[in-house]
Amino acid sequence: MKNSFFNSFVPKQPNFFCLLKQLADILSEAADVLTESVEQGKPEERETYYRRVKEVERKGDMVTHQVLDELETTFITPLDREDINALASGIDDVIDCVNSCAKRINIYNPRVLGDSARELCHFIQQEAACICKAVEELNVFRKNPARLRGLCVELHDLENQADDVYEFFIRRLFEEEKDSIELIKIKEIMQELERTTDAAEHVGKILKNLIVKYV
Amino acid sequence: MKNSFFNSFVPKQPNFFCLLKQLADILSEAADVLTESVEQGKPEERETYYRRVKEVERKGDMVTHQVLDELETTFITPLDREDINALASGIDDVIDCVNSCAKRINIYNPRVLGDSARELCHFIQQEAACICKAVEELNVFRKNPARLRGLCVELHDLENQADDVYEFFIRRLFEEEKDSIELIKIKEIMQELERTTDAAEHVGKILKNLIVKYV
Amino acid sequence: MKNSFFNSFVPKQPNFFCLLKQLADILSEAADVLTESVEQGKPEERETYYRRVKEVERKGDMVTHQVLDELETTFITPLDREDINALASGIDDVIDCVNSCAKRINIYNPRVLGDSARELCHFIQQEAACICKAVEELNVFRKNPARLRGLCVELHDLENQADDVYEFFIRRLFEEEKDSIELIKIKEIMQELERTTDAAEHVGKILKNLIVKYV
Repeated sequence: MKNSFFNSFVPKQPNFFCLLKQLADILSEAADVLTESVEQGKPEERETYYRRVKEVERKGDMVTHQVLDELETTFITPLDREDINALASGIDDVIDCVNSCAKRINIYNPRVLGDSARELCHFIQQEAACICKAVEELNVFRKNPARLRGLCVELHDLENQADDVYEFFIRRLFEEEKDSIELIKIKEIMQELERTTDAAEHVGKILKNLIVKYV
Repeated sequence: MKNSFFNSFVPKQPNFFCLLKQLADILSEAADVLTESVEQGKPEERETYYRRVKEVERKGDMVTHQVLDELETTFITPLDREDINALASGIDDVIDCVNSCAKRINIYNPRVLGDSARELCHFIQQEAACICKAVEELNVFRKNPARLRGLCVELHDLENQADDVYEFFIRRLFEEEKDSIELIKIKEIMQELERTTDAAEHVGKILKNLIVKYV
Repeated sequence: MKNSFFNSFVPKQPNFFCLLKQLADILSEAADVLTESVEQGKPEERETYYRRVKEVERKGDMVTHQVLDELETTFITPLDREDINALASGIDDVIDCVNSCAKRINIYNPRVLGDSARELCHFIQQEAACICKAVEELNVFRKNPARLRGLCVELHDLENQADDVYEFFIRRLFEEEKDSIELIKIKEIMQELERTTDAAEHVGKILKNLIVKYV
């Protein structure tokens, strides 16, 4: 950095970890808007919430494409190309799922979304927080993998808890809801929320593979 | 080509771009049969239409396998192996989706399929036409990427428009359709049509990556 | 093996074919428990059956991770890394599908599961048996690919037959079942059973690619 004459000839390196952190922050933002819509959103506000999530999702798309583009043109990368690609695509998939949840809430437009939907949203928020912390570990985990390993365990546990909430809820829904169209709406939305918690856990698996490979 | 003595020793190169064009044409054919079935098909003809789409899909499978087989045994390829593989698999996925739409129309057998189903079919046809033009650009895009880039934008726009049609339709369907079994049938078919437009846009993303990588 | 002094310096090689056989056996076990639950399980036993399948699925997860971990740290592998990875992931996907079937049977909890569900389970069992035989061929197929080729054809045929059973059943279900909530339950379970037969055929495609590549 001292030799600014020399530096002027060195091509600027994209900071992949910084981009991945941006992407994880965008996921957190999407999860927050989704949760707010489920907690406070009145039915007539659902379209507005969906638009907000969609905007956040587009930001995510742009950062993901930036990562993939830079990967094609950068010679030296801090992790293998395929690993950075997998991480960015994995986080982008979670953002897409969050968007798909907001879309379903808007287009199916159920009368009420109960406590279990709220609970699943909280799991998604917690998973997003884990992923944010995990990408911050990327430049230190080779020396000290303990924290990253702990976050992978946490992601796995959160997904298991979300599974239990989902399964218990669906079983009861099919026993109790007699309005079949309302049942379809709620089932489809809950399925997508649960799929989102799965997608977040999938990021945990990618992170775990990094530990196996690089530590 | 002049030296036929020399040429007799050169192994015949499979023409990958030609095979990809064949595959794109098969996609177009499948989209045409699907659209015809939705536009003109009476309920009692749905099985016949499904059989026709299925035959087209099998042709697609054969060409896709030919591409993958030739990739394994060919030394020099005009694009990286993984890129040709991604393109062939991507187009094959769209054909599979079209087949799955025809299958659902046949086995769910709804009373009517409205204007929105027709509109989604038209989007699929237009996307198929874009993909045909795009694979024709593959041997020139390194020198002149403008046309390929334009087709990627077009695929993206078509998918966005299809999304809007789908979302507007589903929202109304859930408000207006009181026969829950009929609602399930139509929802499942429309979801698959929309998934097909997504799969076509995914081919657009693969094409866009080629521009980033090779231009 | 004779020179035990020398051997003591040679790192122990993981036996990938042995691990893949373990994984295929776990798939067979999962398919057996699922079939038993559909054939003999009373509704009140469904949760117990689901727990049993889930346990088997976790064993599968552990073996799959072992394969992936060993791939990262082993220098010489009997097939290309990506091929072993694809096979293990492919078999693991089938196990996940079986688990998902058991889960849906448990949480949707339909009044009855008819003959077609039983038939699809038998197809899954037969496909699992094919996959077991196929992985036993992995260390000989380069010299004698006939048996592996035959098993790929068998997997393809089984999936086609399962498709026919599924399509015929769903068409009739939508014509005859008037209780829409019961219809949703059964449709969702049958869809997952059919998806499982697809996932098994996908393993057949991976095996077929091995023949093209290595023979």
